[in-house]
Amino acid sequence: MAIQKPSIPKGTRDFGQKEMARRNYIFDTIRSVFRTYGYQEIQTPAQENLSTLLGKYGEEGDKLLFRILNSGDAFGSVDFDRPLTPQVCEKGLRYDLTVPFARYVVQHQSEISFPFKRFQIQPVWRADRPQKGRYREFYQCDVDVIGSRSQVNELELVQMVDRVFGLLGVRVGIHINNRKVLTGFAEIAGAPDKVVDITVAIDKLDKIGLEKVKEEMADKGLQADGISVIEQILSLSGSFGEKLAAMRGLFNGGSASGIVSETGQKGLDELEELFGLIDAVGVSAPVEMDLSLARGLNYYTGAIFEVKALDWEIGSICGGGRYDNLTGIFGLPDLSGVGISFGADRIYDVLVGLDLFPASLETATTLLFAVMGADELRYTLPVAKALREAGVAVEVYPEAAKLKKQFDYADRKSIGFISINGSSEIEAGTVNIKNLRSGEQKAFPASDLDAILAFLK
Amino acid sequence: MAIQKPSIPKGTRDFGQKEMARRNYIFDTIRSVFRTYGYQEIQTPAQENLSTLLGKYGEEGDKLLFRILNSGDAFGSVDFDRPLTPQVCEKGLRYDLTVPFARYVVQHQSEISFPFKRFQIQPVWRADRPQKGRYREFYQCDVDVIGSRSQVNELELVQMVDRVFGLLGVRVGIHINNRKVLTGFAEIAGAPDKVVDITVAIDKLDKIGLEKVKEEMADKGLQADGISVIEQILSLSGSFGEKLAAMRGLFNGGSASGIVSETGQKGLDELEELFGLIDAVGVSAPVEMDLSLARGLNYYTGAIFEVKALDWEIGSICGGGRYDNLTGIFGLPDLSGVGISFGADRIYDVLVGLDLFPASLETATTLLFAVMGADELRYTLPVAKALREAGVAVEVYPEAAKLKKQFDYADRKSIGFISINGSSEIEAGTVNIKNLRSGEQKAFPASDLDAILAFLK
Repeated sequence: MAIQKPSIPKGTRDFGQKEMARRNYIFDTIRSVFRTYGYQEIQTPAQENLSTLLGKYGEEGDKLLFRILNSGDAFGSVDFDRPLTPQVCEKGLRYDLTVPFARYVVQHQSEISFPFKRFQIQPVWRADRPQKGRYREFYQCDVDVIGSRSQVNELELVQMVDRVFGLLGVRVGIHINNRKVLTGFAEIAGAPDKVVDITVAIDKLDKIGLEKVKEEMADKGLQADGISVIEQILSLSGSFGEKLAAMRGLFNGGSASGIVSETGQKGLDELEELFGLIDAVGVSAPVEMDLSLARGLNYYTGAIFEVKALDWEIGSICGGGRYDNLTGIFGLPDLSGVGISFGADRIYDVLVGLDLFPASLETATTLLFAVMGADELRYTLPVAKALREAGVAVEVYPEAAKLKKQFDYADRKSIGFISINGSSEIEAGTVNIKNLRSGEQKAFPASDLDAILAFLK
Repeated sequence: MAIQKPSIPKGTRDFGQKEMARRNYIFDTIRSVFRTYGYQEIQTPAQENLSTLLGKYGEEGDKLLFRILNSGDAFGSVDFDRPLTPQVCEKGLRYDLTVPFARYVVQHQSEISFPFKRFQIQPVWRADRPQKGRYREFYQCDVDVIGSRSQVNELELVQMVDRVFGLLGVRVGIHINNRKVLTGFAEIAGAPDKVVDITVAIDKLDKIGLEKVKEEMADKGLQADGISVIEQILSLSGSFGEKLAAMRGLFNGGSASGIVSETGQKGLDELEELFGLIDAVGVSAPVEMDLSLARGLNYYTGAIFEVKALDWEIGSICGGGRYDNLTGIFGLPDLSGVGISFGADRIYDVLVGLDLFPASLETATTLLFAVMGADELRYTLPVAKALREAGVAVEVYPEAAKLKKQFDYADRKSIGFISINGSSEIEAGTVNIKNLRSGEQKAFPASDLDAILAFLK
């Protein structure tokens, strides 16, 4: 058999030990925060029926689904005059965690206690063109609560974001918008179908200036009255309270069009309530209203969130919002929920970029017992066992190799302590431990676990 | 759009919150033990190139691979006169963790410090016929060290097994065999090609008796001299030492055939060394030599392990062995390794069967703050925050629902403590906490976190 040079599919990755230690650090931090807020983990299978996935991510998304060839004789009873793919593939790989979550809630609704607080950390697969920072397999890390319209849920998501990045040492800014306010803008501009265009325009002011924004809106078909309204929105300034008051006026018939938007007013009520709650509980990260925030626009119905690292340029590292009809496609309407998703790969890059991974992650093994011969080996094995049962990561070099080789092994693995014992230690019943960083060396009675543990700290 | 009744592909599973808490308990226990022995986690992608997977699991295994349809226009340039599957599928889902591990070691050999101690806990996929206890997606949990022939590695695997099941509270028996001894038996029976037949025969003695075993061996083509040798092997009895001495005699020309087996002798040396090491360090579980153990026979070259629960009938819950040429198929020969795999699903079933999951897993949330109104909500939010930052899992009921509903929620989620605060508590600056199991109720100054934490213990 010819020897193959092994490789993995493009857009996929192996995670070595150092990367895994770092990834686990991120996931464990996130998980620990989720748990203190009463969120619990679920997992769904990698494969879903294509009937569950298709049509949920738009036409482009359907193309990016990885499809699984039916097992057995997939082509056995195929009609070659009809399109083949639907005949030979009934299942696909999970494309995100949202649709499987909606499917899960509907399928298991009778077992679930609402409000249902769940998180899910699993890989997803997309047949995207691989490029820097974009992979065909990557982890998503979603936290959602479904079955409650209270904005306490939005507040708690903000608090969790604040806590996670606080623990990771990453300074972030939290941006909040509300879909109903954006709808309100479009309504008072007399163009309720142009929510996206108007939001994009708001976002462009700093880059292209007022005149260009107005030109662009005209190109998009907005009438003069509508353009005047956009101008009013773009001129909003001042504190959160001042902006809020100005927007109340606009939504109340005070804009150039004179149109009243109840939806817009409702959105302002929500924003005001949420910012009030955030003030009441106190959040370390700066939280700001960001009227240009438009992610997931044909999906979110209330609050919209986005989180950016303040000291590292990488775009959004976390985001989400409230949705009112996630489970409707599977036959369970009117279940409102709100959730956010942490971008693990980007958070990883930020932590690398800012050198924020704890140094302790570099060292998996605390102590290496060097081995000089069979007697020494048997002497140290029970000591190693006792230390391991006390939770210390210990290795026993598996053979009586040259000491140089054993030291090299300790060095390559950044092991901090080495224990070398010969016949004199065996006779004295001691173990000799050297701190490889400080050079300090001490002998301990082999039975004095506490003293050894203290030295290894 | 027609409403779909959602479902998942057959043979796959959703894991709800209770199941995930239990599964994580198993994986976290295993992981914590692996780490104290200096093993570190890696992960490989779910998709591997079919060139990596095909031919590694036998003809049957090839059929059970899930294949991924090529993305883009898979059928665009297909030659319909040739078999279609290889033309439209280049990738498949991981079938086990062993082949990806071998691929990983070869691909990353220049970055790896040998001996390389890794573990891997990831799902694998097989297009098997689903049945009770057999799934198309299931987790494997593998631990291997590669690049060392020392039996200290075998010892440490035995120790890890002992420790894991000790922590889980499952009494197990550890069975050990050695492939070289089985080869030795076949050699002295004059039938080196009949290792499997002879091992199967040894295993059947208890069930079918000596005469039937001899008949079966004759049917398999074993000569009279060979059958006499089998009879000698089957008559082995006594302590480990006595059996070992008897086998030494057989391998040294003392059998009915008079044939000498150096391989068999080498196998005995290995067994003797390993049992000596196990004795030296001390292992809680009973460890026994089991000459009928034959798992992975065309694969293992030295020690073979199998672990069974003593108090629950379910077959092997953990097993493995030493292999000498795992990476040879990918061009890196002569790299010896040894590993074991924990069967997470079966271990789960044993823990359910023996009622060994800790009761604490039932309770995800420690304390629920009931909410009576907006003022009460704002009053409790900072207390909830402080408790969460101290690591307590706390929920704040998201709306001012009827108390009955909030108590029901606490009950359904097995929440142990509830805190109900009204205007008098706000005035006094206290929080009122009730232990829902004991009925005990106490008021604490809202700022006295230590006292509250002590009450929640």
